[in-house]
Amino acid sequence: MDDPSSPGSGRITPVILSGGAGTRLWPLSRRARPKQMLDLTGGGSMLALTAARVADAALFAAPVVVAGAGQAEAIEAALPGVGTLILEPAPRNTAPAIALAALAAARDEVLLVLPSDHLVRDGAGFAAAVRRALPFAREGWIVTFGMKAERPETGYGYIERGEALAQGVFEAARFVEKPDAATAQAFVAGGGHDWNAGIFLMRAGTYLEALEAHAPQIFEAVTKGAFAASPAQSIDYAVMEKAERVAVVPAAIGWSDIGSFGALHIVSDQDERGNVVAGPGLAIDARGCLIRSEGPLVAAIGVEDLVIVATADAVLVVPRAESQRVREAVAALEAKGREELL
Amino acid sequence: MDDPSSPGSGRITPVILSGGAGTRLWPLSRRARPKQMLDLTGGGSMLALTAARVADAALFAAPVVVAGAGQAEAIEAALPGVGTLILEPAPRNTAPAIALAALAAARDEVLLVLPSDHLVRDGAGFAAAVRRALPFAREGWIVTFGMKAERPETGYGYIERGEALAQGVFEAARFVEKPDAATAQAFVAGGGHDWNAGIFLMRAGTYLEALEAHAPQIFEAVTKGAFAASPAQSIDYAVMEKAERVAVVPAAIGWSDIGSFGALHIVSDQDERGNVVAGPGLAIDARGCLIRSEGPLVAAIGVEDLVIVATADAVLVVPRAESQRVREAVAALEAKGREELL
Repeated sequence: MDDPSSPGSGRITPVILSGGAGTRLWPLSRRARPKQMLDLTGGGSMLALTAARVADAALFAAPVVVAGAGQAEAIEAALPGVGTLILEPAPRNTAPAIALAALAAARDEVLLVLPSDHLVRDGAGFAAAVRRALPFAREGWIVTFGMKAERPETGYGYIERGEALAQGVFEAARFVEKPDAATAQAFVAGGGHDWNAGIFLMRAGTYLEALEAHAPQIFEAVTKGAFAASPAQSIDYAVMEKAERVAVVPAAIGWSDIGSFGALHIVSDQDERGNVVAGPGLAIDARGCLIRSEGPLVAAIGVEDLVIVATADAVLVVPRAESQRVREAVAALEAKGREELL
Repeated sequence: MDDPSSPGSGRITPVILSGGAGTRLWPLSRRARPKQMLDLTGGGSMLALTAARVADAALFAAPVVVAGAGQAEAIEAALPGVGTLILEPAPRNTAPAIALAALAAARDEVLLVLPSDHLVRDGAGFAAAVRRALPFAREGWIVTFGMKAERPETGYGYIERGEALAQGVFEAARFVEKPDAATAQAFVAGGGHDWNAGIFLMRAGTYLEALEAHAPQIFEAVTKGAFAASPAQSIDYAVMEKAERVAVVPAAIGWSDIGSFGALHIVSDQDERGNVVAGPGLAIDARGCLIRSEGPLVAAIGVEDLVIVATADAVLVVPRAESQRVREAVAALEAKGREELL
């Protein structure tokens, strides 16, 4: 096993991507308070939990947070005095954002890129997976982490495992962006695909070389200080689907992207009737509901499988299985110019 | 036809009962803001609409409002300078409350007793029914108004029509308090029963004599100034079920007691999908919902037949057909001592 503290090897620099301004958890998440700033699981903000996940000083250096230009204050408040903050001049998706962090690092520095708003229940398992990946990253591989595909999710990307490189490390044979339902079903049934969670381990130089080779427009824009001129592309699209020497480390670490209130319901502790009640709420003869309030008391009576989320200025009610439809409310509010609610 | 403005006949004195502190429309209705203070139909508070219903000076004198001790300010605000206000020293149901108004009136004065929180869509029809009842009231009858029993409601009292006394006026053969479902079904099928809406026309003296005869404890307590010592009984129970010379005037006047959010949904203008949206709300692919907010924007997506009511401090979500279960939320809040929400 590689010892990260051995001479010449150095610690891993976590690169926490906090550029998202998702509205998938509206009305909890807002433009000014994106999902990573929310305490969704009771232990602190998703961003703080992400930072805590890479706090082991034996393995990790202080993190670099890459965030939206308007998020500086919120990041400082969520992570006071922790690490380095890089502000994106404009939102350009993950490939350019990671390039900013890579350019700020030494070329041999190993970066652990991770989203700021995902849940990982098994921190020890996560660290073990990172350690397993580290020798490959040092040798110039881009290592991804494959989450067990538990259901035929069509909202995620998938990674096809190729040949084994070592115990628990595989060549990544193929990246598939959001598949159709039949394909996702086949992936889950086949067992050879993992979810792409957007977590990557690689040397800064490896990433920049891959970017230069496969996404030269991004590379040029970022290296020449013209960030806003960069195409807005994800690392998956710009690099992973094209690069060579890409590995995948399957990791059963209790991961969730909490990409919807339905997903939040799944990862939360439920009472005996399947309800999750957070904040002032009454679930009376209710079943399978997610009831969450940051303000008004919510009384849910005799209802089933609903998401009910209340803040001081907005209330969402949607069937749990359709909770991704919150985007329709957000779109309607945008169309009405209700900026104060977004 | 009797002319109410003819010499010696005098105008009718409306007696508006505003003692209710109902929580059936919680969280809109509160102890400090009972249902009659709410604008439920868009035209003003139920109390103001009730006063407007008896505003024809050719037929009616200024109203007497009998209200709870704590409601003086709210009544003044809702009905500035209108009529006389009698405050109940303690809530003792309708029979003692009406007795207060009767004692304050001349014995030959005809009183029109009416709840403060009911909807009557057809004001002209209402006035016509009152005019039809008036000669009988003058002659010493207690006249009730029978609302067409549109469905086998088990929450209302029923009046059985007896022999016809005149065109559209019948002897009241029997009063039945809240029947069971089978009985209610039989009443509706039979067509000989009307709903008891708690609207009565009678001379003050007639009422006091009936009270003395059939509810002497109430009569004594109220006439001796010991109001709080009176039994708490409804006029139906204390008087109507026992008195002689009780008549019923069937009246198809678009009446509703708006006794639940389900009833409010029925009497409100619905959009083409059966939704009623009042206040800041979005109904996206929703059907048959009552969505009402006094504060936060309510976004309802993909839901059916729900009541969603939001105020600044409380949100109710309940199936429309079970909306009377709001009392379970009120009971739970009482049990938790959440006085500020009641």
